[in-house]
Amino acid sequence: MAKVIRIGMLGFGTVGTGAYRMLEDNRVAITKKIGLPFEVVKIGIKDHTKDRGINDSLFTTDLNSIIEDPTIDVVMELIGGVDPAAELVEKALINGKHVVTANKELIAKHGSRLVHLAKSKGLDLHYEAAVGGGIPLIQPLKHQLAGNDVIRMMGILNGTTNYILTMMEEEQADFGVALAEAQAKGYAEADPTNDVEGIDTGYKISILASIAGGKQVPIEGIYREGITKLSITDIEYADSWGYKIKLLGISDFVGPDTVRVRIHPTMIKSSHPLASVNGVYNALWLHGDFVGDVMFSGRGAGSDPTGSAVIGDFLDVGRNIANGGSGSAIPYDLGMNTANMDDLETAYYLRMIVADQPNTLGEIAMVFGKYGISIAEMQMKTLPSNQGEIVFLTHEAVEREFQKALSEVAKLPCIVKVATFVRVDG
Amino acid sequence: MAKVIRIGMLGFGTVGTGAYRMLEDNRVAITKKIGLPFEVVKIGIKDHTKDRGINDSLFTTDLNSIIEDPTIDVVMELIGGVDPAAELVEKALINGKHVVTANKELIAKHGSRLVHLAKSKGLDLHYEAAVGGGIPLIQPLKHQLAGNDVIRMMGILNGTTNYILTMMEEEQADFGVALAEAQAKGYAEADPTNDVEGIDTGYKISILASIAGGKQVPIEGIYREGITKLSITDIEYADSWGYKIKLLGISDFVGPDTVRVRIHPTMIKSSHPLASVNGVYNALWLHGDFVGDVMFSGRGAGSDPTGSAVIGDFLDVGRNIANGGSGSAIPYDLGMNTANMDDLETAYYLRMIVADQPNTLGEIAMVFGKYGISIAEMQMKTLPSNQGEIVFLTHEAVEREFQKALSEVAKLPCIVKVATFVRVDG
Repeated sequence: MAKVIRIGMLGFGTVGTGAYRMLEDNRVAITKKIGLPFEVVKIGIKDHTKDRGINDSLFTTDLNSIIEDPTIDVVMELIGGVDPAAELVEKALINGKHVVTANKELIAKHGSRLVHLAKSKGLDLHYEAAVGGGIPLIQPLKHQLAGNDVIRMMGILNGTTNYILTMMEEEQADFGVALAEAQAKGYAEADPTNDVEGIDTGYKISILASIAGGKQVPIEGIYREGITKLSITDIEYADSWGYKIKLLGISDFVGPDTVRVRIHPTMIKSSHPLASVNGVYNALWLHGDFVGDVMFSGRGAGSDPTGSAVIGDFLDVGRNIANGGSGSAIPYDLGMNTANMDDLETAYYLRMIVADQPNTLGEIAMVFGKYGISIAEMQMKTLPSNQGEIVFLTHEAVEREFQKALSEVAKLPCIVKVATFVRVDG
Repeated sequence: MAKVIRIGMLGFGTVGTGAYRMLEDNRVAITKKIGLPFEVVKIGIKDHTKDRGINDSLFTTDLNSIIEDPTIDVVMELIGGVDPAAELVEKALINGKHVVTANKELIAKHGSRLVHLAKSKGLDLHYEAAVGGGIPLIQPLKHQLAGNDVIRMMGILNGTTNYILTMMEEEQADFGVALAEAQAKGYAEADPTNDVEGIDTGYKISILASIAGGKQVPIEGIYREGITKLSITDIEYADSWGYKIKLLGISDFVGPDTVRVRIHPTMIKSSHPLASVNGVYNALWLHGDFVGDVMFSGRGAGSDPTGSAVIGDFLDVGRNIANGGSGSAIPYDLGMNTANMDDLETAYYLRMIVADQPNTLGEIAMVFGKYGISIAEMQMKTLPSNQGEIVFLTHEAVEREFQKALSEVAKLPCIVKVATFVRVDG
């Protein structure tokens, strides 16, 4: 009798339902590609009262019963978050089960340890769905691009914030309005903190940087800034200079085992391939020493695209089982160094509200000059109530010096407020 | 003593030198990722008189001595063409060697047979470099996207023709001028037939379609048309309607085990992501039933990017050797059905030179009406010497009917010549 690959799913939310439906809809083709039939035999959920429209006897609220079931070969961890996912995944591996997960937080925080555990047990631990939804990113970095020194990566890795920024631009909406629209359409959660503060993007770019560099990037070494302070005014000024504003996760390898990972709104040239990635689409642009520039784009979230990545991983696990393979987890160690944000050299966009009085511009310019920051472009206009708006684009400067200049400028009597600054790149 | 992975290279041209240099430049990182050291021990070449600036004793003109060397673990076939590459790769596999190849013609024509042979011997046969240079395409299709029914793929898969079309557009150059410039820059060969007639694109899209559909697409079932008939006039008309003209390889799955693969100049909307892929860049856009739209882009040719793909494959082979794996070749069978081009339904751009006389438009329109083809847009202008130019964009029509209409129109007395037609898509 041919073996049947037995699957236990942990979680049956957005990703779980997509993965399950893909297994059902494309069962014949997937079975043929693996070379063995498969069956979802248990699905672990929190709440057993909902009708999910499929065989009710599959569901259980006892998640441990899945990872302890000796007949289950593959566990799909689709709960998200670290608790209880970390413990469940660890136990599943200890119990000899291959694991496929979509859990970015888990991998960003515990990836090195868990993948080493999988490897030591001859098991697979795959997590393609953790970054970029359906877009192949993690495995291409581990395999086809693995010969490269991946000097730089820049990613639009969060669909919610990209949708909000696109709405702000297209509908001249301010942040709050665009966020409310994203929430109404189900693209943003009731508490949007993880998305709009760049936490989600941070997990994702740190996973990519960990793979590219072969060592896990410590989360606390990441610089992170969200999009809540941006206004439509900033987007319009950026546009007037030929730039778009995107929330980017950026990874720069600046020395051996040393990376600077940062997440912040970034002004990029309108001609940059990332600038035309709009709405809920995600993309990763990278530069490798041999491959040059490569870009990947597609749907970075949602039930079907993320399910697609989970099932792609499952196919690899399944083929491994069918071929008697020994697991293809590719571990990375701990201990990546992170470069200080203060040493970053970049250009800046800066918008200030000032008192409309003589010498204002001179006083501001003096401060920037003192810190060696030169102004590349400037726009100025009069506002109501005897105020003015001054907007700078600087040449490249050192972050530390820029921040010093900024706090000194903020104290000038002529400054009403420093409205926004945005780093300029690409 | 730890094993050293011994590599034999066949060919040391553009791709071979790139692959060799990557192995040398990134030796430490690649060795660490594989877990074993490696050495290029022989390089097979045609002409031993050139100084290649590396250890001369590595080179041999006796290619068989490489594939018969019992100490060699991995053969990199970087010669190109079917003869003698097909025989060399087959013998290498029979002799128990893993093979990495960049050879699109070989895989398009003999892929199914050779991958089955590799699989039956527990060996790897990888060919990521055969399509899209350094862009990960083949392995993502086989792995991360493998759960999808890949309904459609459209690719800019030949850098030479994309460079020529970009030059034509940007410099208002005609085909011959742009071709000469591409040749001067080394982007086109002295005999550019393989590129400009779409033969190269044909091999590449047929490999992708074979992987997506699990059966080898017979080359003779592919429809192919090159870019030699395009003029700057066509590019300008396209632009006036918001389109770009690109040489696309298109794969549409139209039924079970049935694909329509075609290579022809295609008018695509300027807003389509492929429209802004310019110069020597390549890209693949695809639509899968679960993943939705995904696009990959990057450098599709050249020493370093193609070398990057070869070495990415080598890393997988190396890890397999280090882990005692059993080979990860994913075979596909023969026997894909190809759909008839005549049944294609698409829109058309058509430019005709006509006699500037009464009733010309009426006579032409009558013929199209007779074949059920309706005109969506039209432009008309007077040319010198009592001639005129009429340009149509049709609504969707059936290729068979369009071709009938075209040959009937060509015979009308009022027609001086049918200058060009281009299919409209995307």
